[in-house]
Amino acid sequence: MAVLESAESTIYFETGLESLNLLIEKGNYSRVFVFADGNTSELCLPVFREMLDDFSDFDLIETDPGEENKNIDFCIGIWKTLLDFGADRKCLMINLGGGVITDMGGFVASTYKRGVDFVNIPTTLLSQVDASVGGKTGIDVDSVKNMVGTFTLPKAVYIESKFLKTLPERELLSGFAEMIKHGLIADKDYYLSLKNSDFRAPGPDAVLRSVEIKNKVVTTDPLEQNLRKILNFGHTIGHAVESYALNSPSPLTHGEAIAIGMICEAFLSHKYAELSKEELEDIKNYISGLYPKYILQPESFETLLKLMQSDKKNEHGQIMFSLLERTGHCAYNCKVTEKDIEESLIYYNSIYVA
Amino acid sequence: MAVLESAESTIYFETGLESLNLLIEKGNYSRVFVFADGNTSELCLPVFREMLDDFSDFDLIETDPGEENKNIDFCIGIWKTLLDFGADRKCLMINLGGGVITDMGGFVASTYKRGVDFVNIPTTLLSQVDASVGGKTGIDVDSVKNMVGTFTLPKAVYIESKFLKTLPERELLSGFAEMIKHGLIADKDYYLSLKNSDFRAPGPDAVLRSVEIKNKVVTTDPLEQNLRKILNFGHTIGHAVESYALNSPSPLTHGEAIAIGMICEAFLSHKYAELSKEELEDIKNYISGLYPKYILQPESFETLLKLMQSDKKNEHGQIMFSLLERTGHCAYNCKVTEKDIEESLIYYNSIYVA
Repeated sequence: MAVLESAESTIYFETGLESLNLLIEKGNYSRVFVFADGNTSELCLPVFREMLDDFSDFDLIETDPGEENKNIDFCIGIWKTLLDFGADRKCLMINLGGGVITDMGGFVASTYKRGVDFVNIPTTLLSQVDASVGGKTGIDVDSVKNMVGTFTLPKAVYIESKFLKTLPERELLSGFAEMIKHGLIADKDYYLSLKNSDFRAPGPDAVLRSVEIKNKVVTTDPLEQNLRKILNFGHTIGHAVESYALNSPSPLTHGEAIAIGMICEAFLSHKYAELSKEELEDIKNYISGLYPKYILQPESFETLLKLMQSDKKNEHGQIMFSLLERTGHCAYNCKVTEKDIEESLIYYNSIYVA
Repeated sequence: MAVLESAESTIYFETGLESLNLLIEKGNYSRVFVFADGNTSELCLPVFREMLDDFSDFDLIETDPGEENKNIDFCIGIWKTLLDFGADRKCLMINLGGGVITDMGGFVASTYKRGVDFVNIPTTLLSQVDASVGGKTGIDVDSVKNMVGTFTLPKAVYIESKFLKTLPERELLSGFAEMIKHGLIADKDYYLSLKNSDFRAPGPDAVLRSVEIKNKVVTTDPLEQNLRKILNFGHTIGHAVESYALNSPSPLTHGEAIAIGMICEAFLSHKYAELSKEELEDIKNYISGLYPKYILQPESFETLLKLMQSDKKNEHGQIMFSLLERTGHCAYNCKVTEKDIEESLIYYNSIYVA
C-alpha cells in the first residue's frame, strides 16, 4: 500500500513480505535468525511463514514475553546463542513481535560483533505505530526503561495489519494512545478523525498516518537533539507512572500510562505553553472516557518525581517536558517546577472525584 | 605537535590537554566523569590533573585493571554507577588508560541512555597506536574478545608521550608489535626505520606515523567493510593465541600474541599472496629476535582453529585472512585452508627447533 524510504531504512506498509524475500536474497546473508517471544512465535510465526513461502531457512531464537524480560540478562543469553550458532557479521536478524522484541532485538543486533543487519516486523499496534520506527533500540537496567541502548536503524520495517487480528482489546487500546499522541503533537485533523473512530478496528489509513508523522520527525532529527523530543509528549509523567505501576499489583500497559501522562502534560501545556482551557478539557474528556479508571495515589508522588529525574530528556538535573502549544503543535525543552508537576497529578485524579 | 582532524573526531598529538579544557567548556556538559583502572588512577591521574589545571570538577569511576575485567558484569556496574550519579545525556566520559579502558569506556558511553560523548586519553603505547583510534568499542563475552561492541568515534583523542614514561618494558614491546604491523601493511620505509630503532624509547615521530596510518585506513572504511580489514594482519591467528594463552599459566600480552600471529600470517602471505621468501625470512627473523620465545603446543592447534572460527572477519563460515602482498602492502578477504593454517603454526614453532 505504501513504501516510506529514507537513506538507510525503508518502511514497507501493507505490501506483503515479498520485499523481505528480496532483501534476504540481495543481502547474501550467511544466516537468518528470527527473534520472537513465546506469544509471537505461537501466534505470529505461522502467519510470517505463510507470507514468506519462498524462504524457510532460518533459525528461531525465542525469549520470554513481557517488559520485565527486556533486560541485560536476556540480552547476554541472546548474544551467547548467536555465538553458539556460529553467527558472523553477515547474518540477518528478523525481529518479530512487539516493542520488547524490536527494542531488545535491535540492541542485540546493533552490538553483536559491533553490529549486524536487522529488520523489524512489528506485530502489535503499539510497535507498528511507535517502537519499530525511528531506530531507537534499548533494554531496561534496574527497571529503568531503555537505560541502555543505541540509535540504529533497521534495514527495513514491515507493517502488516494481518498481525493485529490476534490482539486483545487492551493491546489495541495501548497502541491507540500513541496514535492520539501523534495527532496531538502534529496533526489536528488526524486527532479529530481518531476521535470519530473505533480503537478496536484501527484502519490502515490511520496506522499509516501515525507512521508517517513519526517517520518525518525522526528523519529530521534521528538522534533526538531537538525536534524528536516532541514524540515524548505524555511520556515524562507517563513513563514514571508506567515504571511505578510495573511493580504494583495492577501494572498498566504502556498506552494506559501514556494516556495518564498526556492528561497531566496537557494540564502543564495549558499552564506553561499556549494550550487553551477548552483544548485541555477536550483532551482530558476524550482520553479519560477511553481509558480505564486509575488513581495516582498521593503517597506515590515522591517516587514518581524521582523516576522523572532519570528521564533521558533531562539536562543539567532539570526535568524537561514536551508540551502542546495547541492541538496539533508541540514545543520541547520546557522546564516545569516540581510543584506544578505534582499539581498536574492532582488535576488528573480530579477526573474521578467530581 | 600535530592535530589529525576528521568530520566527527579529532586526534590531538603532543599538544597538551588545553584543547580538552576547551572541549569541556564549549560542550556545556552537565557533568564530567573520568574512567580509569586502579593502575592508571594511581600512575596517570596525577599527570592528567597536572596537565588540566584549569579543570578539576570531575567524578572518578574506577574499575579493576586487566583484560579479564573487560566484561559485561563490569559494564553493568559502570552503567549503574552513572545512573547513581544521576548522569544525563549531556555528560562527558573521559577514558584514561589502556585498551581495556578505552574499549570498555567507549562501549559504556556509546550505549548509556543511547549514547553520551566520550574522549580517549590512551596511556599505554598499545592504546596510543591502536585501540584509541578508529572508534571500535567493545567488551568480551565468555572470553571471546570484543564479541559485543559498537563503532562509535570519541569526540577527541589526546596522545601524550608523558604517559608512556611509567610503562614497563614488556608493555612497550606489546605496543611496538602494532607499530611493526602498521609498517608491514602500509609503509615499508616506516618498517625499516622501526627495525633501526629501540622499542624501549619509541620516538614521537614513530608513534605519530602509526597513528597516521591507522587513522587514514579507518577514515576510509569506518565500519570495516573492506580496506580496514588490513589492520587485522597478524590478528586472526594472534587473537586465537592470545585467547588461548589468557587461560594458561603463562598469558601473553596482546603484542606478544600478535607477533606470533604476524610470523604465521607472513608464512601464509608467502603461500597465498605474493610475499617473497626473502621478505618472509626477514619478518620472521626480525620479530622472533625481538619477542620472547613461546612454543605453540601441538595439542592446542584444534582449540586455536576453533577460536579462529569466531573471528569477526569471517563470512559464511570461512576463516578470512589479511595477507601481505609485499612488505608495505596488504590484501584482505583471503581464504586459507585449515591445513595451511596448521602448517603456519608448525612453521612458527620451527624457529625454536633449529
